[in-house]
Amino acid sequence: MKPIATAIVGCTGLVGQQFARLLDDHPFFALSCLTASSRSTGKTFAAAMPGIDGSFFSAATRRHVLRETTAAAIRASGARVVFSALPAAVSGPLEAELRARGLCVFSNASSHRLDPAVPLLIPEVNAGHLELSRVQLRQHAGFIVTNPNCVVSGLAIALKPLMAFGLDSVTVTTFQAVSGGGRRGVAAWDILGNVVPFIASEEEKVARETRKLLGRLAGDHVEECRLEVYPACSRVAVKDGHLQSVSLEFSQAVSGKEIAEALTGFTAEPQQLKLPTAPQSPIILHDAADRPQPLLDVNAGGPGRAAGMAVSVGRLRRQGRRFGFFLLVHNTVRGAAGGSVLNAELAVRSGLIPGGEA
Amino acid sequence: MKPIATAIVGCTGLVGQQFARLLDDHPFFALSCLTASSRSTGKTFAAAMPGIDGSFFSAATRRHVLRETTAAAIRASGARVVFSALPAAVSGPLEAELRARGLCVFSNASSHRLDPAVPLLIPEVNAGHLELSRVQLRQHAGFIVTNPNCVVSGLAIALKPLMAFGLDSVTVTTFQAVSGGGRRGVAAWDILGNVVPFIASEEEKVARETRKLLGRLAGDHVEECRLEVYPACSRVAVKDGHLQSVSLEFSQAVSGKEIAEALTGFTAEPQQLKLPTAPQSPIILHDAADRPQPLLDVNAGGPGRAAGMAVSVGRLRRQGRRFGFFLLVHNTVRGAAGGSVLNAELAVRSGLIPGGEA
Amino acid sequence: MKPIATAIVGCTGLVGQQFARLLDDHPFFALSCLTASSRSTGKTFAAAMPGIDGSFFSAATRRHVLRETTAAAIRASGARVVFSALPAAVSGPLEAELRARGLCVFSNASSHRLDPAVPLLIPEVNAGHLELSRVQLRQHAGFIVTNPNCVVSGLAIALKPLMAFGLDSVTVTTFQAVSGGGRRGVAAWDILGNVVPFIASEEEKVARETRKLLGRLAGDHVEECRLEVYPACSRVAVKDGHLQSVSLEFSQAVSGKEIAEALTGFTAEPQQLKLPTAPQSPIILHDAADRPQPLLDVNAGGPGRAAGMAVSVGRLRRQGRRFGFFLLVHNTVRGAAGGSVLNAELAVRSGLIPGGEA
Amino acid sequence: MKPIATAIVGCTGLVGQQFARLLDDHPFFALSCLTASSRSTGKTFAAAMPGIDGSFFSAATRRHVLRETTAAAIRASGARVVFSALPAAVSGPLEAELRARGLCVFSNASSHRLDPAVPLLIPEVNAGHLELSRVQLRQHAGFIVTNPNCVVSGLAIALKPLMAFGLDSVTVTTFQAVSGGGRRGVAAWDILGNVVPFIASEEEKVARETRKLLGRLAGDHVEECRLEVYPACSRVAVKDGHLQSVSLEFSQAVSGKEIAEALTGFTAEPQQLKLPTAPQSPIILHDAADRPQPLLDVNAGGPGRAAGMAVSVGRLRRQGRRFGFFLLVHNTVRGAAGGSVLNAELAVRSGLIPGGEA
Repeated sequence: MKPIATAIVGCTGLVGQQFARLLDDHPFFALSCLTASSRSTGKTFAAAMPGIDGSFFSAATRRHVLRETTAAAIRASGARVVFSALPAAVSGPLEAELRARGLCVFSNASSHRLDPAVPLLIPEVNAGHLELSRVQLRQHAGFIVTNPNCVVSGLAIALKPLMAFGLDSVTVTTFQAVSGGGRRGVAAWDILGNVVPFIASEEEKVARETRKLLGRLAGDHVEECRLEVYPACSRVAVKDGHLQSVSLEFSQAVSGKEIAEALTGFTAEPQQLKLPTAPQSPIILHDAADRPQPLLDVNAGGPGRAAGMAVSVGRLRRQGRRFGFFLLVHNTVRGAAGGSVLNAELAVRSGLIPGGEA
Repeated sequence: MKPIATAIVGCTGLVGQQFARLLDDHPFFALSCLTASSRSTGKTFAAAMPGIDGSFFSAATRRHVLRETTAAAIRASGARVVFSALPAAVSGPLEAELRARGLCVFSNASSHRLDPAVPLLIPEVNAGHLELSRVQLRQHAGFIVTNPNCVVSGLAIALKPLMAFGLDSVTVTTFQAVSGGGRRGVAAWDILGNVVPFIASEEEKVARETRKLLGRLAGDHVEECRLEVYPACSRVAVKDGHLQSVSLEFSQAVSGKEIAEALTGFTAEPQQLKLPTAPQSPIILHDAADRPQPLLDVNAGGPGRAAGMAVSVGRLRRQGRRFGFFLLVHNTVRGAAGGSVLNAELAVRSGLIPGGEA
Repeated sequence: MKPIATAIVGCTGLVGQQFARLLDDHPFFALSCLTASSRSTGKTFAAAMPGIDGSFFSAATRRHVLRETTAAAIRASGARVVFSALPAAVSGPLEAELRARGLCVFSNASSHRLDPAVPLLIPEVNAGHLELSRVQLRQHAGFIVTNPNCVVSGLAIALKPLMAFGLDSVTVTTFQAVSGGGRRGVAAWDILGNVVPFIASEEEKVARETRKLLGRLAGDHVEECRLEVYPACSRVAVKDGHLQSVSLEFSQAVSGKEIAEALTGFTAEPQQLKLPTAPQSPIILHDAADRPQPLLDVNAGGPGRAAGMAVSVGRLRRQGRRFGFFLLVHNTVRGAAGGSVLNAELAVRSGLIPGGEA
Repeated sequence: MKPIATAIVGCTGLVGQQFARLLDDHPFFALSCLTASSRSTGKTFAAAMPGIDGSFFSAATRRHVLRETTAAAIRASGARVVFSALPAAVSGPLEAELRARGLCVFSNASSHRLDPAVPLLIPEVNAGHLELSRVQLRQHAGFIVTNPNCVVSGLAIALKPLMAFGLDSVTVTTFQAVSGGGRRGVAAWDILGNVVPFIASEEEKVARETRKLLGRLAGDHVEECRLEVYPACSRVAVKDGHLQSVSLEFSQAVSGKEIAEALTGFTAEPQQLKLPTAPQSPIILHDAADRPQPLLDVNAGGPGRAAGMAVSVGRLRRQGRRFGFFLLVHNTVRGAAGGSVLNAELAVRSGLIPGGEA
């Protein structure tokens, strides 16, 4: 199969860099266009980001000259697939324009996540929702697929195999890493030796996106599931990895053993299709008393391309009528760039991207 | 009133230092004896702790010569009140011996907290339980009063004014400071840039102690309340102040306004009696979106002797059938030494300590 | 004496807040005008900075309505003295305009520090250089006085009493706190668990400003001293307090005892004049092996108005032909706002500000 | 060649783990014995260290059962080479006993570093000093080779190629990582948001060991070089990597270009012999203004076995009569286990270990 010409818009941020790393030497995709803000346009990728560890990137990527973030520049490169790491404010209109021009857009931005016609996708959770891309193709030349918020990306994977037990409510408190706010989004002055118990709009996203992801495809839209979600989001002095304290209520009787087996045995389409970025097991369950920890477990799923793609779960315990556990997800990999790339791999293998491997 | 001769056992640890600070120039108590481990015995308080900020302590306290931690040494000093900052393993037997010798022991150790005859006390929450000291006095020459675990010390204060609304369950995830593990208890290697989602025995204490504190005195013991408590405890890279994410279920209909008013209007015996270490308001409710934060709010209640004695609550919000908020408590002040001192002040004013102000 | 009407320009940054704290209820100055960027104009000081600890400020300061940063707004308030906490880029022209209008400007910005006609002043080091203000008054209606860079503010104080021993060279490596970069100047992503061995233009400032400060007034300008200065500046994950590792070469034979006595016995004009913000001793010498430390010693000089105004020195040791020590200075107090306020207090007591106490 | 049976004494600490990682699947050595303290004896390596990232170790190493740290246990395993990661207090006598029994000991402990008959070795710096092992073999059945202190391990490599320019003095201030103090050696309470300007005995080691390393072999001992060394050592809140601010005086005229070329062009025996753990270039010189940084550069030299074996240098600049730069060394790799393994590889290739590849 000939690799599919691919663009990354907003490649210099923390998520953009992860896109560049994951798409370097990818079996399905070949980078034709990297865009950045005007400050970096015209520089090479390496020159625009002197502070990064060059060993993550191929020489070709390092030498890639950055272009401005416009639909024209992207189309001129011949790209048929676009990964978007732009902020929501600018991402929405550009993505719509690219879709109108026939491109397949995989977006980490929140702009279109709750749009009824756009799939909010985690291949292990709701691969069937990708069908909404075909719905879009009836109205547009291309389509948009979104991946959820970084918290939801981990949470929904852990909840998916437990839905069968009649999950009623999820109470979740997050310990979110500073990379979630972008390279300059969290000031050292605010977070050093501190915890900030607020992240703007985050709790709303956690509730809505979890319900859409776990919802049921009904023709041209998704019916949200009825799950009660009680999120509390905070920022901690951690670089990468969103830890989550989760408490669950079930309507059915279920044992700890059943839950443990459901978590460890869980696999889905990405594993069956052996997608390049899929971890062998999407969920890793720890026995040790003090895991998962961001520093020790954030790259679970690897080594190699799937590093950071597995969700780590630990301290699974019965608490009266409930079950509790802690969960860790790499927020800029599984929770952002990696999730988006996995979505695109599923789309390629589903035959949605003409010319790609099917 | 003549000050009551008072001992601190284990004065060199983080909690012991807080005892020394709070009892320095205290209107009720005068330090007659400071004990430490054999490594420090014979040194002055200042010499034993070169790394502390001397400005917190009076010259008299700084010059105090440390004695060994034995009942004999304490009694020889003439102490009638003892504050214990020892680890649970060694604290239990010593406290029992001191009680047998007629001393009044106020302990931060967990050894006797769940003993039916020993009050587990927060003056704002269950001042009436101090009656159990009289029960002890029928069998022993002295008595023991305990203050709860550092997490519970904050949580129970915030829950107390909400019990009237029919509180059914409390889900709480903690972000606990390193000082909770003692000066050398948490290694930098483990916590720098990390979160550790486990603290040994902590969740058990949170559940049991909360139910005893909010329970009903029934003659010579306390009937635990039926509250469901779902704790999840973790350690974060913060020096002082345990932040807690709390989610509440009520059996009655209640509005956010009612909850806010109950929290801000709450006062109890310590405020009515104007106890020296009592904060003007035990609960401070924040309107700002991103409070409370450990670095900004840990010393709430002050300035002066009551610094760190108020509990800060913020982000109060309705979540479907529930209410959520974040709470912050100074773990070595309200959650340890300050809580114990306030208990002793209440005992003095209740006439339980002969010779003290009544 | 009637307090002198005073403005703070740029009051919402970390240095501006320290100005507001130090000028609250000041015996010489009364706040007539607080300015901020357009985002905050029209709000009260408290409303513009929800994240600050209100207990640092009087109710009057908290209610002060912020104005835009223009010479017209400042003059309209009747201010005769202006403290500037603006960035250098905007500070230079505004300060010159205010001087032209007859105001006395005390600036923390670097714009005019190396201007031959402007004193670069630390009252303990070169009080005589204030004479340059009279030079300015011959050409302008008002004058500008600058305080040095935050590193130099500490270093020059420690070097001053040692100049008598024939100091030849100073090698200094800094460990600078994040507050030195402003509230949002250092990203958590860059500094958490890290050290960044570079601060733009800092080493040049350290060398030049140290030589001007320790130089000799020669009529209408200062002749820089010949001291060799070898600076290396870095940023560490500390909130407040610039630690410095210093190595000194002398042309004369000198003993450790002589150096220690010169440091501890050092006092100058601010102490003799009992200026309100002057610490009792400008230099505190530690015997303990592991001091000074930012967290323990940053507020040396206090309690009260002079907290953070003393420089802490420790680990004084002979090293072959040299002497070494570590030094700590509070970068936003002695190294910025406090230094500037002390300069203004000296100017008032020197009779340079008409109407002020003389 | 048949691999040489090898023991690691003290394999569970941070340095011991690095030994285990580096000797896993090593071309020269095969692990026959891993020892630990009595707390871990009898457990497998994996069970004794639940908090480590298992992906670093082979299944064989993970299943290795830990033995007690005695000469008898080591000999019983058939080991002919021993790597020691024990604390100096216990390491000295055990190493002497093992030498007496004919084993070749490569030690990271300080016990024998300044012993005239024992080489203090960095293969890139003073490979010739290994000759002292033959001196030992005349008196003992085996020999001891030591690697220097973690600071010196980096510093001496950077100084070696500059000695030709007539280096007179080195002023060095260190920013040392917490791993240098061992897993539990630095308490979070002391270092979070802080810098501690003291590490016991460190400055003495830096001065003495640098002079021995750069000294001249004179028959059966080393004559220390005359270099003046002015060290100042501090601990910072970094996990791995000792950053160093260095200032150099030369007796000869030298240009920045000459220094840069000497650093970047430097190679020595390990590179010529292609030793398995040798980095391609021992020194990596950065052009970027803000490098090296611990988080970005600590693993320089890799990927693979040589990760963490290269020293990073940056901010090379002329300062009057001097030159300054910052230097970074991975303290538990090049500064400890990796340095020791490289020493052993050199010994094997020098024919000092019978039966090893020569």
